[in-house]
Amino acid sequence: MLAEQPSAIQGVRIVELKQIVDERGAVLHMLRRDSDLFTSFGEIYFSQVNQGVVKAWKRHRQATQHLAAPVGRVRLVIYDDRDDSSTKGHVEEIVLGRPDHYKLVRVPPRLWYGFQGIADQPSLLANCTDLAHDPNESEAVSPADNRIPFQWQAV
Amino acid sequence: MLAEQPSAIQGVRIVELKQIVDERGAVLHMLRRDSDLFTSFGEIYFSQVNQGVVKAWKRHRQATQHLAAPVGRVRLVIYDDRDDSSTKGHVEEIVLGRPDHYKLVRVPPRLWYGFQGIADQPSLLANCTDLAHDPNESEAVSPADNRIPFQWQAV
Repeated sequence: MLAEQPSAIQGVRIVELKQIVDERGAVLHMLRRDSDLFTSFGEIYFSQVNQGVVKAWKRHRQATQHLAAPVGRVRLVIYDDRDDSSTKGHVEEIVLGRPDHYKLVRVPPRLWYGFQGIADQPSLLANCTDLAHDPNESEAVSPADNRIPFQWQAV
Repeated sequence: MLAEQPSAIQGVRIVELKQIVDERGAVLHMLRRDSDLFTSFGEIYFSQVNQGVVKAWKRHRQATQHLAAPVGRVRLVIYDDRDDSSTKGHVEEIVLGRPDHYKLVRVPPRLWYGFQGIADQPSLLANCTDLAHDPNESEAVSPADNRIPFQWQAV
């Protein structure tokens, strides 16, 4: 079992992922069905995010996201405005990318999240969600929405 | 439903994947549970393969692989030596990579397969398998094994 690090937000989990690196390349773990982070499989897809670009904010009503960045570097930001949460009002910023921040972040439903490419190349964020994409199950607001207390910065 | 292309090997499926590209980057589909290619979820992991590197040959007894290359370019080669196959003896070579060859390849069990990075950067091959990794369920031979009628070339 790889190291789990604490999160500032109730229900978010951050777990180090295994990288098996050699001169040929690497094998990069993400998620297995026997992981205690796994719930059910809905969809696996990728978001390529170019340097400096912000993709934010999104909130799912029901779906849980499992995020990892196998290429490049991504700033992931999560905001908790859930009335029933012990961490309501908290913002958490998590850097994802190899080799030093190759980790899996589990974002439960009802949290706002967004991300930014912070490498000098396009970055790749993989998302293994427990529900297949359904536009009726999520909502989005702009990166500058003032209901979310986080200012995205240029990189 | 996106286009499916014929395969030279019985049971292999090759399906074009959707790419939603804009100036920010792209959203790249891979596999959903409501796809008719989906069986069950075992594991999602990535193989980074550096320029020219060959990772071959592998054969699974039970697991089905679902492969796509969201970054770089990969030569995937599949060899059929199944006694009960109508395509026994066939070798199929499939190029994977964006934007023109972004597709999902489903490799059923009992086929030999291997791949090579053919971009001038490290490529990423994603694999969504229906069984989590189990070393007792697969076997490997070297890229030069003469039982497999394919010669890997330098790139």
